[in-house]
Amino acid sequence: MKFAGSHILSIEQFERQDIERIFDVADMMIPYAHRERVTKVLDGAILGNMFFEPSTRTRVSFGCAFNLLGGEVRETTGFESSAIAKGESLYDTARVLSGYSDVIVMRHPASGSVAEFAAASRVPVLNGGDGANEHPSQALLDLYTIRKELQHQGRNDLDGLRIAMIGDLKYGRTVHSLCKLLCLFERVSVTLISPPELAMPQDLVERLREAGHSVFQSNVMEDSLAHIDICYSTRIQEERFADRAEADMYRGRYRLNQAIYTAYCEPNTVIMHPLPRDSRVEANELDNDLNDNPNLAIFRQADNGVLVRMALFAMVLDVVDQVDKNARDVNWYTERRF
Amino acid sequence: MKFAGSHILSIEQFERQDIERIFDVADMMIPYAHRERVTKVLDGAILGNMFFEPSTRTRVSFGCAFNLLGGEVRETTGFESSAIAKGESLYDTARVLSGYSDVIVMRHPASGSVAEFAAASRVPVLNGGDGANEHPSQALLDLYTIRKELQHQGRNDLDGLRIAMIGDLKYGRTVHSLCKLLCLFERVSVTLISPPELAMPQDLVERLREAGHSVFQSNVMEDSLAHIDICYSTRIQEERFADRAEADMYRGRYRLNQAIYTAYCEPNTVIMHPLPRDSRVEANELDNDLNDNPNLAIFRQADNGVLVRMALFAMVLDVVDQVDKNARDVNWYTERRF
Amino acid sequence: MKFAGSHILSIEQFERQDIERIFDVADMMIPYAHRERVTKVLDGAILGNMFFEPSTRTRVSFGCAFNLLGGEVRETTGFESSAIAKGESLYDTARVLSGYSDVIVMRHPASGSVAEFAAASRVPVLNGGDGANEHPSQALLDLYTIRKELQHQGRNDLDGLRIAMIGDLKYGRTVHSLCKLLCLFERVSVTLISPPELAMPQDLVERLREAGHSVFQSNVMEDSLAHIDICYSTRIQEERFADRAEADMYRGRYRLNQAIYTAYCEPNTVIMHPLPRDSRVEANELDNDLNDNPNLAIFRQADNGVLVRMALFAMVLDVVDQVDKNARDVNWYTERRF
Repeated sequence: MKFAGSHILSIEQFERQDIERIFDVADMMIPYAHRERVTKVLDGAILGNMFFEPSTRTRVSFGCAFNLLGGEVRETTGFESSAIAKGESLYDTARVLSGYSDVIVMRHPASGSVAEFAAASRVPVLNGGDGANEHPSQALLDLYTIRKELQHQGRNDLDGLRIAMIGDLKYGRTVHSLCKLLCLFERVSVTLISPPELAMPQDLVERLREAGHSVFQSNVMEDSLAHIDICYSTRIQEERFADRAEADMYRGRYRLNQAIYTAYCEPNTVIMHPLPRDSRVEANELDNDLNDNPNLAIFRQADNGVLVRMALFAMVLDVVDQVDKNARDVNWYTERRF
Repeated sequence: MKFAGSHILSIEQFERQDIERIFDVADMMIPYAHRERVTKVLDGAILGNMFFEPSTRTRVSFGCAFNLLGGEVRETTGFESSAIAKGESLYDTARVLSGYSDVIVMRHPASGSVAEFAAASRVPVLNGGDGANEHPSQALLDLYTIRKELQHQGRNDLDGLRIAMIGDLKYGRTVHSLCKLLCLFERVSVTLISPPELAMPQDLVERLREAGHSVFQSNVMEDSLAHIDICYSTRIQEERFADRAEADMYRGRYRLNQAIYTAYCEPNTVIMHPLPRDSRVEANELDNDLNDNPNLAIFRQADNGVLVRMALFAMVLDVVDQVDKNARDVNWYTERRF
Repeated sequence: MKFAGSHILSIEQFERQDIERIFDVADMMIPYAHRERVTKVLDGAILGNMFFEPSTRTRVSFGCAFNLLGGEVRETTGFESSAIAKGESLYDTARVLSGYSDVIVMRHPASGSVAEFAAASRVPVLNGGDGANEHPSQALLDLYTIRKELQHQGRNDLDGLRIAMIGDLKYGRTVHSLCKLLCLFERVSVTLISPPELAMPQDLVERLREAGHSVFQSNVMEDSLAHIDICYSTRIQEERFADRAEADMYRGRYRLNQAIYTAYCEPNTVIMHPLPRDSRVEANELDNDLNDNPNLAIFRQADNGVLVRMALFAMVLDVVDQVDKNARDVNWYTERRF
């Protein structure tokens, strides 16, 4: 696909080579995100960071990514919707707001709303999450993390990947998107671990199989953890359940800790989670005793989100080739405690 | 008037030549707002964008205008008022906040509050709307839009303008301000279309007549649409009514659509609206079938708000002559879908 | 102490020479805060201004201080806590958010939370207030103000200071911190004026005495105002009382106005207050008729907060020596009404 000027609304719009190009640009961003170098390539550009639903980490991650490229950020945080309450259409909102910035990130609780907004926008729109529908930058950062963690182990290929997804596979938007992205690759083995009531939707299972992948389904975690490269744990999406009591039935069903990891996993199995992880006693999806496990990749995953979002901005605004020009070394304290 | 260092609190402070100077500076801002050029004239300056009442579009428009001049923005969004709740006076708030920035935009629900705040501020204050009282940048962008639309038709003069104002003329702050501004010009014909209960306040009608203008009042829309240059539609200001049921009686009373436009208006009649337009079925002030009408100026109107606000900042901070210095071409994707 | 890369969590971490070094750097910041000069020393750096509890003035003061050094600000305003509501630990929040910026300011309602957050953060954290516990930048700006006001009177030493603290000395976080800081100096005379029920905690009184200071306690204001250099008034911290009715019993107990000042104070006695002052009739801690008294230092105190916060950022990010490099004169209107 052509990135310059495009909306980024869904992972369905990408082919394998698009994904690989995004990841290569994300790699280019590492010295800037790690604060070794400063670039001002988007000096003077404005991001409209339009969150019509609160999401601190996604909002700050996008805003930070834009700042790291030298641009300015104007934003809403999800507590203002006066115009919409007065009967304004998404079309009007888009026409007006797109006059204020060079690119827009939009998050909105209604499925499909971001695409509708983008159709009327006069600048490129990146989907920051539209309800149960899509959250493409999250799916990309997940896959980017998988690639990077495997590369770290000396594997330079996503083909042949063995991954387990655990938890609420019915409502978890991130695992749905990840399954779709995996269909662009070859010979993937996918183990789906969930209560039967929260199983991966059947159309996605079939889509994986049509892509030539192996799919295993189970409702027991421990025995399925052997022979996998990536263990992708998820939170019960309680806000999607009809009532909270139902969500409580499933919370805490699958708990991974260091003892289980040692007993069942191969030594290099990478642990991922889209975050936030639910650390309350009744959930404890990933125990805190994993925090010192070098294969716990959940915070590297969040860091990678900044790289992927920087890449998307640079590609959509067509400045990839200019990023390294006029860059300079960082002049302040940066000795991070990685 | 002298702009450098002045507060912009009310349109009453302007004479005709002040208005024309603002509009000339707004014209200067076009290449920057259209993202052909970048200026850093206010690099290092800080705007305090203090919204004590939520208003996404006005807040973002002011913030964006300041960014487009190269400055930084610190802001509140209307959901914090802890200090005021603890008994702090507007005087104290102004003394403190004016130590944090080079210029302040303030919006506040109480009529007169911005002037009170400005009296204690140590930096220039721009009124971003104080309740039912004033919203001077909106009035300026409306008149600037009228001038620009007429110029586009080859008319270089606001004298002799023919304008219709439609809807809630009693509570609509924007039409009141526009009437006051029109008194600075000559031979204007003003048609006021509203339910009798929502008529333009009598003192404003008299003020128009004292300025030598013709004023026609009617409660029927269609027959009044012939022989006008500008059709200015407004929303029922339901938040100003004692009870919502009363507002509902008037919502949807005047509906303009393409068929009515074709049947009653001259071919070049410009359609304006201060936005948000109420697109719900029961209101539908300006039908969506007008969206392709090239004379629908409502989104150009919102765009012009950025130009006018850039002009006010540049004039109040006395940098008009420096804007074009050190400017450079934009280096990112800007092919907007105008 | 070594500032580069350190967290600033508590005033307990400072020795006298640290305080003096902070104040010297704060003095260096005056031309930048007074908008005579612009520095871009932190151009490209990002502050994560993380307010998990609303506080307009503290948030804007920190953000402005960072902008004045040339950096960018990403922030939350205290109305978003979606991740925490979903069971995320402070550890996870810190690990994630510290990947987004070069330094973090954090405010949080729970005592001790900022230190817990800092322990997991990968970048320096400045405590912006953690409940009833600490608010170190406020304590520093208070002491910096005392030093500056005395210098203005020709006294170059905090040793020998005579100070009265008035009001809610039980719950007032700022007076507690100030007492601790004063223990680093010599021969201070401290007069504590409060209702017996709101007296300064006994451990702080003893700590002052152990430092060799004189401590006087009284529940009458007027007679205690003679022979002091600094009169530090405070607000009843009604949000810390079990019920509001109890707070109402104390509000308005001590009221200073110009007549009392003239009758009881030495001519140069400096009036301070951590702000917001409660100007409601029933409180009126510092009457508005003091606003023209040149010794009313409450707004200079707020201004000094920007200087102290700039100093902390510059020291923690280790750029003090670079601040004046590449600085330039301000090019916009700055004729403030001091």
